[in-house]
Amino acid sequence: MNNFKPFTLLFALIFISALTCGQKKETLAEQLGYPRDAKLLIVHADDIGLSHSVNSATIAAFEKKGINSGSIMVPCPWFPEIAEYAKNHPELDIGIHLTLTAEWKNYKWDGVLPSSEIPSLINEEGYFYASTEEVARNANPDEVEKEIRAQIERAMAFGIKPTHIDTHMGSIGATPELFKKYLKVGKEYNIPVFLPLIFLQALTSEILELVGPEQILVDNFYMISAETPGVPWNESYKQIIESIKPGLNQLILHLAIDDDEMQAITIDHSDFGAAWRQRDLDYAVSEEFKNVLKKNDIHLVTWKAIRKPLKSSSGNN
Amino acid sequence: MNNFKPFTLLFALIFISALTCGQKKETLAEQLGYPRDAKLLIVHADDIGLSHSVNSATIAAFEKKGINSGSIMVPCPWFPEIAEYAKNHPELDIGIHLTLTAEWKNYKWDGVLPSSEIPSLINEEGYFYASTEEVARNANPDEVEKEIRAQIERAMAFGIKPTHIDTHMGSIGATPELFKKYLKVGKEYNIPVFLPLIFLQALTSEILELVGPEQILVDNFYMISAETPGVPWNESYKQIIESIKPGLNQLILHLAIDDDEMQAITIDHSDFGAAWRQRDLDYAVSEEFKNVLKKNDIHLVTWKAIRKPLKSSSGNN
Repeated sequence: MNNFKPFTLLFALIFISALTCGQKKETLAEQLGYPRDAKLLIVHADDIGLSHSVNSATIAAFEKKGINSGSIMVPCPWFPEIAEYAKNHPELDIGIHLTLTAEWKNYKWDGVLPSSEIPSLINEEGYFYASTEEVARNANPDEVEKEIRAQIERAMAFGIKPTHIDTHMGSIGATPELFKKYLKVGKEYNIPVFLPLIFLQALTSEILELVGPEQILVDNFYMISAETPGVPWNESYKQIIESIKPGLNQLILHLAIDDDEMQAITIDHSDFGAAWRQRDLDYAVSEEFKNVLKKNDIHLVTWKAIRKPLKSSSGNN
Repeated sequence: MNNFKPFTLLFALIFISALTCGQKKETLAEQLGYPRDAKLLIVHADDIGLSHSVNSATIAAFEKKGINSGSIMVPCPWFPEIAEYAKNHPELDIGIHLTLTAEWKNYKWDGVLPSSEIPSLINEEGYFYASTEEVARNANPDEVEKEIRAQIERAMAFGIKPTHIDTHMGSIGATPELFKKYLKVGKEYNIPVFLPLIFLQALTSEILELVGPEQILVDNFYMISAETPGVPWNESYKQIIESIKPGLNQLILHLAIDDDEMQAITIDHSDFGAAWRQRDLDYAVSEEFKNVLKKNDIHLVTWKAIRKPLKSSSGNN
């Protein structure tokens, strides 16, 4: 999101209005049978496949209905474990967490494609770069396109039918040119892309034109991005949930078991550590979370469910 | 070891005698200052780098002097963790466990080289084959040579100075042509290769000629290859140690913590499971192990230590 220009937000809003005018007046909520101003929420687990610890926690959360969606990191070593689970649970809402970085100090991976085909994504040690900034500086958009296609293809070869694609560490949004590839590939595979309204602020008109009427826009997404000292975990989530507005929202959780494996992966990393992820898991499966959602009139929806009415709606345009 | 021919053992023994005649009469034990018929033993941890669990167990065993040598799997995701440790502990005897297979069901890796450069080593899912048999059927020797060079190079790039190379699941011995590459690469890098006498039985005369007088032959190697029902772990090791003969011997251990990560890696695998590896760790660091070694007059040696006299000795030939 480096190319923000002052007029872009205005342009984006006009563009979206234009899209909206051409569509039925029905909101997504109405299409799904909810009141016009319903607060819709996807409860989404990120980073699935990263480790056994993450896989175990995510499976537990799916089975206890603590989450209703999630996305998988295909290049990670534990991908086959979660792929097997996803294949055997086609009812679940599972997408691909497109991955261009390997951010942990002692635990590494590279791309699905041979490194020689994606040299701009590979550091001198032979792995993906650790940061989105390095991806922004180095990535060749055509190589990114090839790699994200390969990640989707591998997922499908393992029996996964991705309900959506999204982006690990936002690295696919590192530059407008990469973002364009994300939209392009999503369109070609006919897979919804995670596209929060706020992302549009950074897009050029050329890229905005790629956002067609079939695109599902996420009005707001929420996650705990840094622990607030003195504020208990459940209180932070309560505040987030109370702030949710009408429209389509996504709550992003990072689940894991706080065990040796996860502690070792997240060593020397300030946020998203093993204890953090265990707290996310504990909260996701808690009665308190369910109660707060209920109290705030939140309706849970999945990528799979929202895709259907939009597909038929876009077919009318 | 598929090309065993009845006359090869005889040939090998004649060949070794010929080598021996051309050398000083001193045995390796004498060169190291031990009696001529001393029983020398390397206590060696395999599979380092495979997982965090294996790394933790191996580091604990090194620090408690339960092992005095080990070798690292460079293509594995946890390689950077152990590479950092090895770099910071240059006094340790650490080699490269050349890896051509990824044998676990849900946890996978491919080569250090781009898969497009080593297609004969990569299965249709994009990972290394699971078994040595598949390596034997598919591997192109030139690709194997490139890949094992790349594994050594990556290890050195991470600051490791390998004291020896050996072979994960014996896959480098899957065919005589691969074995030739192993000897060739070891010679070119001037790194001793793990070469037990029994391996020579399978070699052709052409390959045997590659075994020069500088080569350190391991007279016998020992490991628990299947649990003997009803025999306690320490009793199995006691029997092994009591059976050790004069000459250079290597005891191969498979160390890990019996935790969630290791249990998940070794799922659906009959041997070398998490509990097995924990028993190996417990035995390695036990007083009982030290006492059994002492009682049987075993002298512990490392690849690093035995390399020196042999290098100066081969310089005289």
